[in-house]
Amino acid sequence: MSASTTTFVLGVDLGGTNIVVGAMPADGSMMHAVRSEPTRAEDGADGVTARIVRLIEDCIADTIRITGATRANFAGVGIGAPGPLDRETGIVLITPNLGWTDYPLRDRVSNAVNLPAALDNDANCATLGEWWIGAARGSTHAIGLTIGTGIGGGLILDGKLYHGASGIAGELGHTSIDANGRRCKCGNYGCLEAYASGPAIAVRAREALGGDETSLLPALVHGDLDRITAQTVFEAAERGDQLARHVVRDTAHFLGTGIANLLNIFNPEVVVIAGGVTQAGDALFEPLRAEVRRRAFKPAVAVCRIVPGELPGTAGVAGAVAIFKAWAGV
Amino acid sequence: MSASTTTFVLGVDLGGTNIVVGAMPADGSMMHAVRSEPTRAEDGADGVTARIVRLIEDCIADTIRITGATRANFAGVGIGAPGPLDRETGIVLITPNLGWTDYPLRDRVSNAVNLPAALDNDANCATLGEWWIGAARGSTHAIGLTIGTGIGGGLILDGKLYHGASGIAGELGHTSIDANGRRCKCGNYGCLEAYASGPAIAVRAREALGGDETSLLPALVHGDLDRITAQTVFEAAERGDQLARHVVRDTAHFLGTGIANLLNIFNPEVVVIAGGVTQAGDALFEPLRAEVRRRAFKPAVAVCRIVPGELPGTAGVAGAVAIFKAWAGV
Repeated sequence: MSASTTTFVLGVDLGGTNIVVGAMPADGSMMHAVRSEPTRAEDGADGVTARIVRLIEDCIADTIRITGATRANFAGVGIGAPGPLDRETGIVLITPNLGWTDYPLRDRVSNAVNLPAALDNDANCATLGEWWIGAARGSTHAIGLTIGTGIGGGLILDGKLYHGASGIAGELGHTSIDANGRRCKCGNYGCLEAYASGPAIAVRAREALGGDETSLLPALVHGDLDRITAQTVFEAAERGDQLARHVVRDTAHFLGTGIANLLNIFNPEVVVIAGGVTQAGDALFEPLRAEVRRRAFKPAVAVCRIVPGELPGTAGVAGAVAIFKAWAGV
Repeated sequence: MSASTTTFVLGVDLGGTNIVVGAMPADGSMMHAVRSEPTRAEDGADGVTARIVRLIEDCIADTIRITGATRANFAGVGIGAPGPLDRETGIVLITPNLGWTDYPLRDRVSNAVNLPAALDNDANCATLGEWWIGAARGSTHAIGLTIGTGIGGGLILDGKLYHGASGIAGELGHTSIDANGRRCKCGNYGCLEAYASGPAIAVRAREALGGDETSLLPALVHGDLDRITAQTVFEAAERGDQLARHVVRDTAHFLGTGIANLLNIFNPEVVVIAGGVTQAGDALFEPLRAEVRRRAFKPAVAVCRIVPGELPGTAGVAGAVAIFKAWAGV
């Protein structure tokens, strides 16, 4: 296939911290010219959009240079953005992380780069990317969990992304595993996100420290406990710190409870876990799988893999490309 | 439409307590000749099957007599049975309530009545019945909960029944709302079924009684507390008994937590609750809806009705008819 007949699609993954943009041939065979920059939400919606547009133009230029394609080879842009959003109108309704309200992101980007564009939720895009070319490829029923600052979810059911009645399905981080548990930012009690997101892991570590003088954690943050992150906890656990290991095991307990629920509800072939917590590796995944085995129905456990994502950093971009492909039928 | 050109389908709802059989025109416009008998599991699988076959033959005879149809007008039989089961082979794998293992129910019935047959899970059938001609009709995304001895679930997603990778999806009663909560018969902890099934409601009432001497409950069961059922609790609550009202409110709290999770996961248009607990009426449904409003995402709450089933006693039969229709394409 010569470059001149290849159709390329651009994918944008807009996060609270970083914007990542890439270009892919429509067959998903590779990713060209990945570009990333800090989001810098303080620049406002128009400022962030200008940055997205520039990254897209840079990606197009890179891809043309590398492959010999022309601008006519680019079919459009898929955009994954924090929700809730309206896919039909392409409007981001509210983004607490970015501070936007009712912002017509899709059309602003589309008009600026003179290409059609499609918009979906970032967690949906990450799941779709892993399903298209990552850890969930080949499955019919797949669940994605992206665990970072929050816990996002995406559902591939009967071979396609499930959106629900008003497009907000898949809020798997906001399912309660303790009816009378920790208050969550969403207003509910006992949400998975309130126990197992990155910041929640850090909070539990700080709580567990109490008067503990044997843990490595304080030394790792030079005594400033506010600087403890999930990453610090995983690092201490890897070095053998008992308190940190306990926090990781508790994380597996909470996540395992929530994922066992998902197995009994969906009977999926694969659960893909992406985001910062996957850095914990087997120290998290092994007790997590054991917890799921203890809790979920055996026939559901028997057919389901629980695996880390295979596209760290680019699942959202690949999924955004797939969103555009589905929307435009390319 | 004259009876001689109407296609009829038979539906069988096999429960642990009763067998219900009915005949419907394939358009779902009405139900003829509903027949019911106690299951009497002690007669064994072949004995129960013989009873099902006789009820089907009686239904066919009744329908012929009423409508003027002939036997050639009957296209086949849909069967809803307790799971887990294998839809492809028509085999009931294990039924704790009936004591069956690997029983080829579909083919036994099909051969005996000389009509093709299809098999699915009873909770799926109940949900499908409510979706086809009951409380969830017209919706694209609907969730059914059947609350009786256990809590069964069914999922209509994107306009069709969702089965998952190995056919056991929708075990909504076995989702934990308390990671460290009550042990459930399934082996998990904190399952919805362990708090809000009929027997679980009765257990909580007995526990709450303790030394309480003001409650009406003991008098309603002539002092034999083992005879307290969910029905007794609802009756006492309706008569103003404070302890029973508290148990009903707690039931709403537990169910509301589980249903709020389902709203955040599925963003459905309707949740249909069927089974014995619907007898509690508004005393249960109003606090339950309030609990869901407090917990679930507002956009999910805004588009979702939470309603009692409209087909008490026949939802499973109607759903079994729909199962056959989908399977046979009639």
